Amino acid sequence: MQTETSQTGRVMAAIRARIEARALTTGDRLPSIRRFASTMGVSPSTVVEAYDRLAAEGLIRAQPGSGFYVSATALPPLKLARTATPQARAVDPFWVSRQSLDAEDDALMPGCGWLPPAWMPEAALRKSLRNLSRASTTLLTDYGSSLGSLTLRQLLIRRAAEDGLRIEPEQLMLTASGSQALDLLCRFLLRPGDVVLVDDPCYFNFQALLRAHQVKIESVPYTLDGPDMAAFEAALTTHQPRLYLTNSALQNPTGASISPQKAHRLLNLASAHDLIIVEDEIFADFEPEPSTRLAALDGLTHVIRIGSFSKTLSASIRCGYIAAKRDWIDGLVDLQVASNFGGPSPMATEIIADVLTGGSYRKHMEEVRRRLARARREAAERLARLGIAPWNVPRGGFYLWCRLPDEVDSAAIAQAALRQGVLLAPGNIFSHARTAENFMRFNVAQMTESKVWEVLETAMRA
Amino acid sequence: MQTETSQTGRVMAAIRARIEARALTTGDRLPSIRRFASTMGVSPSTVVEAYDRLAAEGLIRAQPGSGFYVSATALPPLKLARTATPQARAVDPFWVSRQSLDAEDDALMPGCGWLPPAWMPEAALRKSLRNLSRASTTLLTDYGSSLGSLTLRQLLIRRAAEDGLRIEPEQLMLTASGSQALDLLCRFLLRPGDVVLVDDPCYFNFQALLRAHQVKIESVPYTLDGPDMAAFEAALTTHQPRLYLTNSALQNPTGASISPQKAHRLLNLASAHDLIIVEDEIFADFEPEPSTRLAALDGLTHVIRIGSFSKTLSASIRCGYIAAKRDWIDGLVDLQVASNFGGPSPMATEIIADVLTGGSYRKHMEEVRRRLARARREAAERLARLGIAPWNVPRGGFYLWCRLPDEVDSAAIAQAALRQGVLLAPGNIFSHARTAENFMRFNVAQMTESKVWEVLETAMRA
Repeated sequence: MQTETSQTGRVMAAIRARIEARALTTGDRLPSIRRFASTMGVSPSTVVEAYDRLAAEGLIRAQPGSGFYVSATALPPLKLARTATPQARAVDPFWVSRQSLDAEDDALMPGCGWLPPAWMPEAALRKSLRNLSRASTTLLTDYGSSLGSLTLRQLLIRRAAEDGLRIEPEQLMLTASGSQALDLLCRFLLRPGDVVLVDDPCYFNFQALLRAHQVKIESVPYTLDGPDMAAFEAALTTHQPRLYLTNSALQNPTGASISPQKAHRLLNLASAHDLIIVEDEIFADFEPEPSTRLAALDGLTHVIRIGSFSKTLSASIRCGYIAAKRDWIDGLVDLQVASNFGGPSPMATEIIADVLTGGSYRKHMEEVRRRLARARREAAERLARLGIAPWNVPRGGFYLWCRLPDEVDSAAIAQAALRQGVLLAPGNIFSHARTAENFMRFNVAQMTESKVWEVLETAMRA
Repeated sequence: MQTETSQTGRVMAAIRARIEARALTTGDRLPSIRRFASTMGVSPSTVVEAYDRLAAEGLIRAQPGSGFYVSATALPPLKLARTATPQARAVDPFWVSRQSLDAEDDALMPGCGWLPPAWMPEAALRKSLRNLSRASTTLLTDYGSSLGSLTLRQLLIRRAAEDGLRIEPEQLMLTASGSQALDLLCRFLLRPGDVVLVDDPCYFNFQALLRAHQVKIESVPYTLDGPDMAAFEAALTTHQPRLYLTNSALQNPTGASISPQKAHRLLNLASAHDLIIVEDEIFADFEPEPSTRLAALDGLTHVIRIGSFSKTLSASIRCGYIAAKRDWIDGLVDLQVASNFGGPSPMATEIIADVLTGGSYRKHMEEVRRRLARARREAAERLARLGIAPWNVPRGGFYLWCRLPDEVDSAAIAQAALRQGVLLAPGNIFSHARTAENFMRFNVAQMTESKVWEVLETAMRA
């Protein structure tokens, strides 16, 4: 019987180890007798004996007709650790993204790049989910088509038509997210060592993504009405970049938009230098009146348009899009099939199309724009009292790109604020040339709590 | 007044062009007066005049207090074109994926890699969507954490514990899909020119993805109980591969599983040759009893586990996962932030966790396994009558890997069947070494319609 006993002991030890490691916690059901017997290479009767003994010890309890469960004597529930503690990370392009994604729900984040949940079209989303619960079984269970939802693509084609841009159906594909749209384009168009132009400053994740593709980044100063054209032209000649990546409509982080004259010149330069322009229009719906769009002027010859719905509708629904030359789309679809077996979730695109056509969306965005205009004004006034001056007055959106008093290093401020639970976005994470040590991007929609201002003030004084 | 008139004409022509191009179709609202004036660079009164004239022509109609709409005289609604016509494509690794993704809802697809909608846990999904419509606003609108939903990760950790695999919380991340899990790993672990071992035959999208990463693919024959070990060892010595990519539990396309002895030998070889093994367990829940898992034997030292919920729960909800060494996960999370600004949709992971813990899932899978056993038996019998013989008798899943009569080329059969509206999966799309011309993968759950059998029989006779 020695063998029998030690086998029972081995099974008991295995269950104990799992409870200790919190792989099994209070209330969890234990593996079935049969399954665990197979796992441990013992007979079912050995597992029965082991479970019975553990039950006698009080570690687990039997529920007749249902199985065995971990008792309430178990260890407190495990809180899954987040990745590396925030403070341990360098202030690099991942600084704000990783920390804002992994912040607690009640964290204060004037450095983050989205609106608070209360600003989003909650009622419309809830209604769409109820509608979705009655959708066809195919929609709820099957893969989507390789280009993505027909309905949502038709909607985007109509919206582009309002900007004066005609997009053929074969020129538009949906992607798993806005970032993934750009990622696919980088894979498709770039090779390691290629040069890509970005704005200085620009969205930090553009840099993170381009680095992942091992391309060379060069930056051109962004001015109040678009890139510095002399610097842009010089960069074309010097570096022969393959691609220029920018936001049209409320550039991130400055909130500035390109002027029609610069847009026109830029397109002529693109044509002369065989440059591809990727125009991310993610903030377009925040503009009170549409500004010049490169894609609309160009007609998708040198320009590729990308965007998403994360800022205006929901970041929990992942979906982006690419409008480009027909030939490119076919190659991009292959790439998305290989890397993601298709694009966004059909459920996700159904919700987006439902909210966008639901009638309340336009009104919702009008209200958001009004609220943002007020929040922007108020934040600018309060920042001015701290000696922090907006670099420009954006026409819309939630960003204020600000200059700090001369002697102040924004990275030091951000690190001090983070220790107090406030996430800021220091200038140099946006600046490839690292010219923005003295700048900070504020999200005015995330600055309503007085603690934000207290922490900012304290950090500035130190 | 000449200028005024021609400007009005220009606006009218622009609207006409959009209707012609079907960017605006019957019932669509025209751009607002103000918006279109800005787009066209004319005064609002010019647009008013143009719209009034178009209304007088009957092309559009005014709806008081709401705007202008395209009349019912408009062209028939545009059906968005699919990408390249199916027949035009070569029989390459994208052949089945692109065609099955883009098939009509009523297409017959014994070549596809998933269950029909009617086999999926529809009631549980609908219930989860109703639950989701009452979830917190944050869940419905915000980005998820960088590792992905805590609840779903805890669930996966517990399921791994049932297989005897202890996964630390920092060793598990959620991804945008199962394919994307593999894509991230390829980016993280491979450089162009590296050698990757796959099974011959193997899942065709493994080849498509590896090609996209510009790595060298080498294949090892898969036998009834795992890879041919002599060939595997020879490949290690000859090619010094960095990675071996396989399915544990019901290998795709054969439905075979590795024996414990081979698993053990494989791990010893991996250790001796510094080989990383990526084990995709996507079909694991289809096994009646769990087979040996490499990750469970190895404990995530040389093995990385990936998987998804597309086959068992819903392919419309996109989500995958990676369990690997802690250090790797941190780098992979950075990569997923850069390329997708995080992982799966928090809504998607909420639905998955809800269905998995909902109580009905286990019963649902038992029923699916029972149905599949029956369907497999019936399909094998009918195939035998056509001279098509299963290579093996899988323990579970929906695939039958079959040998055709000697003189028959499976690609020719597939092309003939496609012309009759039936999508088949010819052997060589699974075979990097192109040794499977004479084979075909059948999905037994997709073979209930008699037309499938009629078309197959006709194609075989020709």
